[in-house]
Amino acid sequence: MQKLANLSKLALAGLFSLSLVACGGSNESKTNETAQAAPAAKVEPIEWKMVTTWPKNFPALGTGAEKLATSITEMSGGRLKVKVYAAGELVPALEAFDAVSRGTAQMGHAAAYYWKGKVPAAQFFTTTPFGLTAQEMNSWLYSGGGMELWEEIYAPFNIVPMAAGNTGVQMGGWFNKEINSVADLDGLKMRMPGLGGEVIAKAGATVVNMPGSEIFTALQTGAIDATEWVGPYNDLAFGIYKAAKYYYFPGWQEPGSAVETFINKDAFAALPKDLQQIVRAAARQANADMLDEFTALNNSALETLVNEHHVQLKRFPNDVLAELRTASDEVMAEVAANDPASQKVYDSMKAFKEKVMKWHEISERAFINARAGE
Amino acid sequence: MQKLANLSKLALAGLFSLSLVACGGSNESKTNETAQAAPAAKVEPIEWKMVTTWPKNFPALGTGAEKLATSITEMSGGRLKVKVYAAGELVPALEAFDAVSRGTAQMGHAAAYYWKGKVPAAQFFTTTPFGLTAQEMNSWLYSGGGMELWEEIYAPFNIVPMAAGNTGVQMGGWFNKEINSVADLDGLKMRMPGLGGEVIAKAGATVVNMPGSEIFTALQTGAIDATEWVGPYNDLAFGIYKAAKYYYFPGWQEPGSAVETFINKDAFAALPKDLQQIVRAAARQANADMLDEFTALNNSALETLVNEHHVQLKRFPNDVLAELRTASDEVMAEVAANDPASQKVYDSMKAFKEKVMKWHEISERAFINARAGE
Repeated sequence: MQKLANLSKLALAGLFSLSLVACGGSNESKTNETAQAAPAAKVEPIEWKMVTTWPKNFPALGTGAEKLATSITEMSGGRLKVKVYAAGELVPALEAFDAVSRGTAQMGHAAAYYWKGKVPAAQFFTTTPFGLTAQEMNSWLYSGGGMELWEEIYAPFNIVPMAAGNTGVQMGGWFNKEINSVADLDGLKMRMPGLGGEVIAKAGATVVNMPGSEIFTALQTGAIDATEWVGPYNDLAFGIYKAAKYYYFPGWQEPGSAVETFINKDAFAALPKDLQQIVRAAARQANADMLDEFTALNNSALETLVNEHHVQLKRFPNDVLAELRTASDEVMAEVAANDPASQKVYDSMKAFKEKVMKWHEISERAFINARAGE
Repeated sequence: MQKLANLSKLALAGLFSLSLVACGGSNESKTNETAQAAPAAKVEPIEWKMVTTWPKNFPALGTGAEKLATSITEMSGGRLKVKVYAAGELVPALEAFDAVSRGTAQMGHAAAYYWKGKVPAAQFFTTTPFGLTAQEMNSWLYSGGGMELWEEIYAPFNIVPMAAGNTGVQMGGWFNKEINSVADLDGLKMRMPGLGGEVIAKAGATVVNMPGSEIFTALQTGAIDATEWVGPYNDLAFGIYKAAKYYYFPGWQEPGSAVETFINKDAFAALPKDLQQIVRAAARQANADMLDEFTALNNSALETLVNEHHVQLKRFPNDVLAELRTASDEVMAEVAANDPASQKVYDSMKAFKEKVMKWHEISERAFINARAGE
């Protein structure tokens, strides 16, 4: 269920079913994928299907997939037309990776940690507890060797990955119980998927995995004491403030979650060079657009949550953050030790993090503190 | 001289003259700029000239212009060919804006604050003291109304602007005198162009404007006590560590300087829609690439400066930062009050900054401090 829980975290569960069955074989690609569109010759358009893990027009994520598809279609002057399928329209959400791998669809849009059951190292390409911020993640991927590793990890699956969005730092979650010290984590019933869940379990909490659709009632009935979700924009839309008292920060568990697009390798190789470059640039544009959008939308949603819904913002105490930081390092080292590919990716990311933290110590961090008067 | 000083800050002065005369009328565009390249029809390529304010292949900035041009040429399958001219090759650096305005060149690559003599509001689109970080600047531009204002400001000059890079937080500068309190700013002879210079003058320093080529000797002879430049990567290349003892942070004066590309409006309007989208996406890609590159390159350069050249890193004291912050607010308000367009842009940026600071207080800032154990 962890994968489902992971997924539903970002889905407007309850409004959209995550278990829709694929529309079936009759929707298999009829696209001619051979290289056919020389820039200046009259040709039939290439048609691609993009399968996603998001409900139709899901805020920032589903709409991000739509914008990416539109951008490729427009930049190619209609020579490469990309049609987006919401989760369940063509294949179920969690089969998107396989569908692109075998060529049922040519392209996908998701978050890499959904595939960790099949590709354990994939989760490092979304985010890690106490890991890289969005700016650092992009620098690691595009100027620090991260992208080459990601391509290597997905190559056996006949897939080419690209970053296609980022949420920025998320929130720590919604709590009905104050967290005043490490002792308050003991037995805390919290819904927290992924690596974050493993970390908080190590720190004493009882991790509960459940689909997003059940969270609201579980918080109201006391079946869980706390849950993490995304950030002000998505959390406001989901209405969790009606079921929980305190909104904790910072989101140590997801400090800059990357969204991915992934492409069938044969379909990509069959494109002429100009269309390949268009797809790459469109992904880079989508990557930047989503972070810009999340940053601006979270600003306004936070105002609404605090001013209109009187949400109580709380910072995790220092000893709790210290405990979670130590547990994070342990969990990451364990995950890496169990899988050579994960070890290789983790080593690269860890080395980059150590260097970038030294630089950002005197630049981004020093500045943002000085600006705040501290 | 301020504009020249501003420019030379980013130029490897001494190696390249900033006062080269334009190559003259014989190099005027012979390009056919009418809409001619329907996606699927055989057509002659459109040829564009890109004039820049950088010396040829100047690290990260000049190379960023080259990558942008290559990217447009490749994505268009050669239908739109962009050729880059270094400062002085076609027109002098500081005439790039006018050259694009009148169509001598179709495209430019620079930093908007170079044009403040002609367009005072332009400087807000590069950076402001104690202003927005790179991530915040991009969010303001692309999701907060900034880009629309920038287009409005450049429209009377027949120019369409786009962001095309960012340096991230810069360094505070190189000093031969320790700054232990506000009193140490009194009479400090510092080379500092632009708004930062106005701020530090208000705080008591004697601002000296000089081209980059004179900085090294001026520091060695004591003609100046201090200078700001860019960050570890550029500063290491420039060798300033040989002439100054202390390297101060953070770079309060330029917390995320945006680089721009700007396009002749008629030339842009004459492009078919697909090529317009290609140019926009290429700029977005260049914008992200440059920040990723600066982040990664600064990491390594900082290690070299500290470990091999034993540079002493120093943080400005709290009272100095507080004084500079107050002076910054005053200078910005004065600049805005003198020019209605500047006021309009400053108001938008200031409102965005207030909101994003509240959100980043509990996300980016809270996280980056928690990760550092504070």
